[in-house]
Amino acid sequence: MRAKGEAFRTIWQKPGDPLVVQIIDQRMLPHEYVVRDLRSWQDGAHAISEMLVRGAPLIGATAAWSLYLAAAAGRCAGNAQREVQLAADSLRKTRPTAVNLRWAIDRVLAVARASDEQHLVATLEREASAICDEDIEISKGIGRHGLPLLEEIALRKAGAPVQVLTHCNAGSLATINWGTATAPIYFAHQKGIDIHVWVDETRPRNQGSQLTAWELAENGVPHTVIVDNTGGHLMQHGMVDICITGTDRTTRSGDVANKIGTYLKALAAHDNNVPFYVALPSTTIDWTISDGIRDIPIEERDPREVSQVFGLTREGTGTVQTIASGTPVLNYAFDVTPARLITGLITECGICEASESGLARLFPERAVRK
Amino acid sequence: MRAKGEAFRTIWQKPGDPLVVQIIDQRMLPHEYVVRDLRSWQDGAHAISEMLVRGAPLIGATAAWSLYLAAAAGRCAGNAQREVQLAADSLRKTRPTAVNLRWAIDRVLAVARASDEQHLVATLEREASAICDEDIEISKGIGRHGLPLLEEIALRKAGAPVQVLTHCNAGSLATINWGTATAPIYFAHQKGIDIHVWVDETRPRNQGSQLTAWELAENGVPHTVIVDNTGGHLMQHGMVDICITGTDRTTRSGDVANKIGTYLKALAAHDNNVPFYVALPSTTIDWTISDGIRDIPIEERDPREVSQVFGLTREGTGTVQTIASGTPVLNYAFDVTPARLITGLITECGICEASESGLARLFPERAVRK
Repeated sequence: MRAKGEAFRTIWQKPGDPLVVQIIDQRMLPHEYVVRDLRSWQDGAHAISEMLVRGAPLIGATAAWSLYLAAAAGRCAGNAQREVQLAADSLRKTRPTAVNLRWAIDRVLAVARASDEQHLVATLEREASAICDEDIEISKGIGRHGLPLLEEIALRKAGAPVQVLTHCNAGSLATINWGTATAPIYFAHQKGIDIHVWVDETRPRNQGSQLTAWELAENGVPHTVIVDNTGGHLMQHGMVDICITGTDRTTRSGDVANKIGTYLKALAAHDNNVPFYVALPSTTIDWTISDGIRDIPIEERDPREVSQVFGLTREGTGTVQTIASGTPVLNYAFDVTPARLITGLITECGICEASESGLARLFPERAVRK
Repeated sequence: MRAKGEAFRTIWQKPGDPLVVQIIDQRMLPHEYVVRDLRSWQDGAHAISEMLVRGAPLIGATAAWSLYLAAAAGRCAGNAQREVQLAADSLRKTRPTAVNLRWAIDRVLAVARASDEQHLVATLEREASAICDEDIEISKGIGRHGLPLLEEIALRKAGAPVQVLTHCNAGSLATINWGTATAPIYFAHQKGIDIHVWVDETRPRNQGSQLTAWELAENGVPHTVIVDNTGGHLMQHGMVDICITGTDRTTRSGDVANKIGTYLKALAAHDNNVPFYVALPSTTIDWTISDGIRDIPIEERDPREVSQVFGLTREGTGTVQTIASGTPVLNYAFDVTPARLITGLITECGICEASESGLARLFPERAVRK
């Protein structure tokens, strides 16, 4: 994935000023490409909770970099370890559903505890950097393993475009680069396979129409935006060959929490015999729980995400209020798709059935530990 | 239904000027309550195609009044019959999916043909007026027959609110008054049953968050707006007791074309054992076709309905463009829910199974004719 003519990353240290971490303010896309400085772990926590960054892997990476910033801030006062612990406790609460957040924090904390105060900043810089590098490799692994699914459809359709439907943004912007659901798409596109993506708008935050459409356009991948209501109709009429989404948390039995509305698309896919795949780094698997509908906490967010819509006005970017003031609004951010509706999970280690045995086969060491 | 302190109708002759028909410009709700004059059948056609009015029954009524306006315009030139026929041909093409449009036009044309030139205007005035009066009686019939479904749930829940989910606007604003899907809700509310409505936002035109929420608020019915993605999650968690939607066309086998996304909600209801009812005047039944997915034409509308969102800005009403310019968008207005997913059809003549035999039992004279 390349954007703005540069080799693309969603989070990086500022050139010449390694104590500043930079991100793209994804709230402004596609209308403005704004880079923001994170100068403290509080900036990082704000970026996560206010969704300047979003997407499970990028949330994890941002938390890791935030802990590095905490260590740097604590160093001057001689209490870097304490500051890191404090930051970790706060960061953990920013988003309840994504499990990568917890995973990244735990990983960095383990490294921090093994480090002495003097080397803490350098250690956490290395760790955050490693998490990002590994995430790119993970995305590429997902791309490699998912590619044959698309190649097979291309072969069957003999030249007609492979029609993929995706929900929300599980793209480069949700990771460090390449994305999860989009990695097989980018790999197929680079291989010259004729591919077209149906992009769900993804209310309320419009991550599909604003983020996925943006990065597909930047990479020259043909796509069409549809409202979230449309996917079922397309599938009824044979206009979708395969659905691929991401996930914020996957249970050990293969239930998948992802952006609200994913479940509805999985139902439509099931009803129309369209394969429904979920792409994920193994870091999004929560081995401690099995029943996703019962046990995954679903974040409830500000009703204004529904009632205020962001975009371009005549005077630049701005919002309109679509709903009458005082109207009650409820805004759940995720839903859970039960494993029975999922054809397969595409991970960096291969594809498996969305089931306890399927996941155990692919990750025997993790499944046993539980 | 009462709004703005007056006994409510969605279309009426201007007091003191019967050659002007007035409507509420539903595009401006809930932000502004704007009444528009229809002074010619062309005004009526524009109101239908640009969705100043929408909803199958109101579309039919607007077409009927438009034919009256055509007769009035033709009278001066001495070619009222010809003008009515000309208007009918044009009006027929304004919206392809709703079958009431065709039904209302055919009904008025039959009356027109039987009338002499001299009495044509008065005849069509009577006919359009009768269509509206009858529509109110039909809505009340739907309310009467649907009410026991809600009473039964209320009894079972012993005081906890009856949770209804609806999609789009099949309310007063879609008819002359009372609505189709909302009629049982208003009847239950007036009877003192504790009821709460989950209102699907209904992208792209937001008829749920802008119209249904408005009229429920005007009538004091508790409600909460959700994005279209949310209904499945609510049903998984037992937060919906019953779904009731409207329809723009129903086949003789009980397949239902309704606002895009209805099919997804029906799938979720089916998956969670939530009863899914469709409320309809029998005029929306198309006895000539059986397979809705194959045979109901689905209207494709302007992509700007998706990319431009209307609402309140700091300077009054306005729009924002949510999607980058040049992004391809596809905008289907309806989808088809197969009869197998529908628990029952609520009509002015009673409730029946969504099937050929169910409909034939309720409307033996129509079913036979086919």
